[in-house]
Amino acid sequence: MAGNTFGTLFRYTTWGESHGPAIGVVVDGVPPGLALDEADIQTWLDKRRPGSSRFTTQRREADQVKILSGTFEGKTTGTPISLMIENTDVRSKDYDAIEDAFRPGHADYTYFKKYGIRDHRGGGRASARETAARVAASGIARKILGESIAIRGALVQIGPHKVAPARWDWDAVAANPFFCPDPVMAKEWESYLDAIRKSGNSVGAVIQIEAEGVPAGLGEPVYDRLDADLAKALMSINAAKGVEIGAGFEAAALLGDANADEMRMENGNATFLSNHAGGVLGGIATGQPIVARFAVKPTSSIAIPRKSVDRSGSDVDIATKGRHDPCVGIRAVPVGEAMMANVLADHLLRHKAQCG
Amino acid sequence: MAGNTFGTLFRYTTWGESHGPAIGVVVDGVPPGLALDEADIQTWLDKRRPGSSRFTTQRREADQVKILSGTFEGKTTGTPISLMIENTDVRSKDYDAIEDAFRPGHADYTYFKKYGIRDHRGGGRASARETAARVAASGIARKILGESIAIRGALVQIGPHKVAPARWDWDAVAANPFFCPDPVMAKEWESYLDAIRKSGNSVGAVIQIEAEGVPAGLGEPVYDRLDADLAKALMSINAAKGVEIGAGFEAAALLGDANADEMRMENGNATFLSNHAGGVLGGIATGQPIVARFAVKPTSSIAIPRKSVDRSGSDVDIATKGRHDPCVGIRAVPVGEAMMANVLADHLLRHKAQCG
Amino acid sequence: MAGNTFGTLFRYTTWGESHGPAIGVVVDGVPPGLALDEADIQTWLDKRRPGSSRFTTQRREADQVKILSGTFEGKTTGTPISLMIENTDVRSKDYDAIEDAFRPGHADYTYFKKYGIRDHRGGGRASARETAARVAASGIARKILGESIAIRGALVQIGPHKVAPARWDWDAVAANPFFCPDPVMAKEWESYLDAIRKSGNSVGAVIQIEAEGVPAGLGEPVYDRLDADLAKALMSINAAKGVEIGAGFEAAALLGDANADEMRMENGNATFLSNHAGGVLGGIATGQPIVARFAVKPTSSIAIPRKSVDRSGSDVDIATKGRHDPCVGIRAVPVGEAMMANVLADHLLRHKAQCG
Amino acid sequence: MAGNTFGTLFRYTTWGESHGPAIGVVVDGVPPGLALDEADIQTWLDKRRPGSSRFTTQRREADQVKILSGTFEGKTTGTPISLMIENTDVRSKDYDAIEDAFRPGHADYTYFKKYGIRDHRGGGRASARETAARVAASGIARKILGESIAIRGALVQIGPHKVAPARWDWDAVAANPFFCPDPVMAKEWESYLDAIRKSGNSVGAVIQIEAEGVPAGLGEPVYDRLDADLAKALMSINAAKGVEIGAGFEAAALLGDANADEMRMENGNATFLSNHAGGVLGGIATGQPIVARFAVKPTSSIAIPRKSVDRSGSDVDIATKGRHDPCVGIRAVPVGEAMMANVLADHLLRHKAQCG
Repeated sequence: MAGNTFGTLFRYTTWGESHGPAIGVVVDGVPPGLALDEADIQTWLDKRRPGSSRFTTQRREADQVKILSGTFEGKTTGTPISLMIENTDVRSKDYDAIEDAFRPGHADYTYFKKYGIRDHRGGGRASARETAARVAASGIARKILGESIAIRGALVQIGPHKVAPARWDWDAVAANPFFCPDPVMAKEWESYLDAIRKSGNSVGAVIQIEAEGVPAGLGEPVYDRLDADLAKALMSINAAKGVEIGAGFEAAALLGDANADEMRMENGNATFLSNHAGGVLGGIATGQPIVARFAVKPTSSIAIPRKSVDRSGSDVDIATKGRHDPCVGIRAVPVGEAMMANVLADHLLRHKAQCG
Repeated sequence: MAGNTFGTLFRYTTWGESHGPAIGVVVDGVPPGLALDEADIQTWLDKRRPGSSRFTTQRREADQVKILSGTFEGKTTGTPISLMIENTDVRSKDYDAIEDAFRPGHADYTYFKKYGIRDHRGGGRASARETAARVAASGIARKILGESIAIRGALVQIGPHKVAPARWDWDAVAANPFFCPDPVMAKEWESYLDAIRKSGNSVGAVIQIEAEGVPAGLGEPVYDRLDADLAKALMSINAAKGVEIGAGFEAAALLGDANADEMRMENGNATFLSNHAGGVLGGIATGQPIVARFAVKPTSSIAIPRKSVDRSGSDVDIATKGRHDPCVGIRAVPVGEAMMANVLADHLLRHKAQCG
Repeated sequence: MAGNTFGTLFRYTTWGESHGPAIGVVVDGVPPGLALDEADIQTWLDKRRPGSSRFTTQRREADQVKILSGTFEGKTTGTPISLMIENTDVRSKDYDAIEDAFRPGHADYTYFKKYGIRDHRGGGRASARETAARVAASGIARKILGESIAIRGALVQIGPHKVAPARWDWDAVAANPFFCPDPVMAKEWESYLDAIRKSGNSVGAVIQIEAEGVPAGLGEPVYDRLDADLAKALMSINAAKGVEIGAGFEAAALLGDANADEMRMENGNATFLSNHAGGVLGGIATGQPIVARFAVKPTSSIAIPRKSVDRSGSDVDIATKGRHDPCVGIRAVPVGEAMMANVLADHLLRHKAQCG
Repeated sequence: MAGNTFGTLFRYTTWGESHGPAIGVVVDGVPPGLALDEADIQTWLDKRRPGSSRFTTQRREADQVKILSGTFEGKTTGTPISLMIENTDVRSKDYDAIEDAFRPGHADYTYFKKYGIRDHRGGGRASARETAARVAASGIARKILGESIAIRGALVQIGPHKVAPARWDWDAVAANPFFCPDPVMAKEWESYLDAIRKSGNSVGAVIQIEAEGVPAGLGEPVYDRLDADLAKALMSINAAKGVEIGAGFEAAALLGDANADEMRMENGNATFLSNHAGGVLGGIATGQPIVARFAVKPTSSIAIPRKSVDRSGSDVDIATKGRHDPCVGIRAVPVGEAMMANVLADHLLRHKAQCG
């Protein structure tokens, strides 16, 4: 069944394969009258673009977005906004060697089992290239959210190496190729990741996304809770294997009196004294910052040979050449930010519809 | 916006408050001709029922389910199945003391901010009582899944105390009041939790849910992936703060060659040599067991006073009396199993619709 | 696939069979803080109730509605509202004679072909009894619409006998058992319908529904147009075979200059000089009254023998006893009003979400 | 709220304005492995293409479709299929005269009231140009339906002039510029429509669409009935004002014994002796041909001056130049066929999901 649409009121559908002529997204439900041009979207695509350092895939895509509909004289019209990004640096020959074999840990196998089709060129629809379309949609989502809601993300762990909370500096994030908020750790990652890259291996990571300025009330329990929709959104990112809100798995080890975010009146406002909840209680935003983390596994396309099978049912050993990210977690940072924006824009409209 | 419906093809809507006359669920999209009577549903409700040991709330509910529609002569007719459970042991007076104050860490505050209404009696709609309706729905979901898909869950951590993988014994789960697969740890939890209960405190937990026999191919990328829908389903359970599939957050620390689930032909079938993926690749089931975990925070209703505020904007200290679970994680086990069943039933029908 | 839910933001799901223990509806997405008690819903059920004259079925149902959830202290809470109506006057024995045979023109045959199940008792889910649940939902829809939107309906044709536009008097509608706005025609219908009833036959009808005070702007093109959703809503009523908006099929015979609803400024407002459009242009409300009509076929359960077949594949002649409406069009008037209310409430919230 | 998506399992979203760079559609949920190339879609676009006779708009569009995703080596892959048609013959200057004024009977006014935006160029999103995207989608729908389901349409009325049932000849439809099944009436229409065209006026029409070979069982009551979804689909076509199934409004004048479609066994199959139902009973297909009709109003863009108002609130008289269809009903025939195909493809998958 159709599964390529995200959101309900801010609703978008992505399309396109890694090695097709283009990828794109149609965004429906956008309020009219918002100022929007291609630069508003391009800025987020540029942040995600591959090839920006030696730690990401060497595929060179301009990722130039075109607006094909839904705006008039620089403003949204309320009708569907169609965005398209042409694929330019496609090298399908790299994939001839794996035309019949399945990469262990890759969606190759499951797409074939599900659809009976093997589009071996660059992962086809399962490629992380699809995330460019999500990021493009988020350029519109952020227009809906407005200036008062700020979303930012950071890479907080690569392999076993975690950033130190005491050294956390949001300004550092833009100053290294890892979106790392800890300048000391960024240095360590550089040599660590160089070694992994040279050995043809890959490594996992954890990404943290925060949103400030989210008004209390967003979220639609009991199923379309804000945290449940965030969990789905972040788990839908390629390679994601886990999602946490606030204290997350650490909450399992806490006692009730320690976990409770106590409240006091401050300047006439109810104010929380801590944020173990990560900004969500009962599936509804508290008004505190939304804090989410997600883990991504190591890239499955590696140059180290692994045992596998092929379409004809023979055992094979497979090593992937192509051009791949040694740590997909790096480029997952802007993608995670995008999904946070897409979820919040949807919930802002949903809350307005019923309770606005 | 309406948010009380789960699923697309196996689709159900729950209703009811903790202290209203009844709770219930309407299940639509059920294939016709399935044998179904009340006992098929009651068996799962009995597993979740409160008051079964001193470690769960002392509220005594018979949780007797009635089928009001959708069956004829013991078989499903393909029309909506309405299930109702009457509330019998309601003691709203327990809650008079908190009529105006917000329990820290509870949905009290956010429901009030969202809806402008304060139904203080037992948590209203935010109460875990709603999970009985999900469990009832899962009785039908399991009929759709059939005998070849087996779902089971276990509590794997309470506070800092984790079960030992080496001692894991599925048969032990039914032999202690914690759904604990480790008989040694079950004993430790007993004294640990007794102490917490007596101190009026509470504690978090981690639950693991597995599904065996799930056919390869289930899952609808790129958004309605099987793992993304599981993440949403499990995060929608009361008190959930984190969800993992397979290796989960541990995958962040792994290298690509270690994480790859290698494959070999065995007796003519492609067979995985490990299951870091937790049975899902690219959002699609691999055919291996689906393995998911979720963390729940400590119950927010505790007898230890916490700082809070009330509706009139005054600082208050609040301690909750009522009858509460010292560890909601225990009863979250059958609820997690239920959500696994509900997700799989939906995806079984979804896959059949497009690829069957 | 699940098909018993109507609406998107004002969203309800109905359940129940004609001869089951009860029927009901769960309404989700209702704004919080609306005054609502059972009397607000009962008033519309009473208008639709069977057995109120000799021209409708003699089944006597109290149709007493209970609110099971979603309100607190007389106000909506924003959570799902569950409404239940018990079936009391069930006489399933009447249907024993048709246990195996299919009534020509009835859904008997198609439900059996679709689901493989034959619930012969009173039509099962296909019975017009389901419409009580829609009418109940409309009691809530009208609360959302508020006092400024007025919905009213009338029966405008029975068999070949149409009301005279020149004699149209809305006040007459409540003064006869037909919801007829033409007192002269109401008299004629009385004798006409008596003859049909006595002969064991039935007859079709046309119903007109109008809504005044609908603000310009409601409707979500290009698919979820206001008129398209009305067409679906009215066609979903039992026995409906046609739907028109404004001039409807008459528009086919008009020239462009005659059909154009010209406009002039009046007291500072753009004002239409006619309403061929029936209040909808391009799928969006113009601000003029919404005018819709739908045709219903004659009741298929008649006492006159008709040729048919049975489950075993034999030819049979069948005459239905039971208690049936000689003209279902009469009771379709409040049902049509209800569906108009349900569509408008949904679109009011939808418009607010994107453009409010 | 987003309203540009049609269908649930066969689900597509259209985008694009009359005078933008392109229009298009993304089709999701398509079963994998279907043979599909651009010619399969082009054939239906060619049938609808403007400028094919003097009775349709003189805008000359090649309407050349491109497949941008979702196929591999000539087969569908199960992933979203993105189709794009570039706009080539755009003459926006024609519309400068109406930049501020609203055409009576056109969506100009309501789009402005809803969205606060005036895209005066060729009707913007409200233009019938959008129907090309629906027709493109139907090329894929027909692949799902397969060879055994045949859909065909005809124009059965222009102004007051109706085809004669006795002269109905499906082979005649392709032999005149009106899709008219009555060769004698086609001649009459030619002179009638020439006179209307020369006078700068327009006229309404009625279109009939039939589908043969539809298996009994399609349709999802009680809301997503096959006839209700058809009513929505056909009413969503530009200028539509009425929809009928089978006997339609004529059913209102029938008695029950005449309307009943009697049944007899023939060669071991239950066979209907008439088809007043138009192939749908209780919202479910009977297995007989599906017969639907819809009425379209006259084109609102006419050269005869009409009274109107403009954005500044002044009275104006307005006559439209541009290039317009004197009878949009002609090109509505392939659009009606397309919507029939789109509805049936969706319901085929829906039925399979629950009952297959």
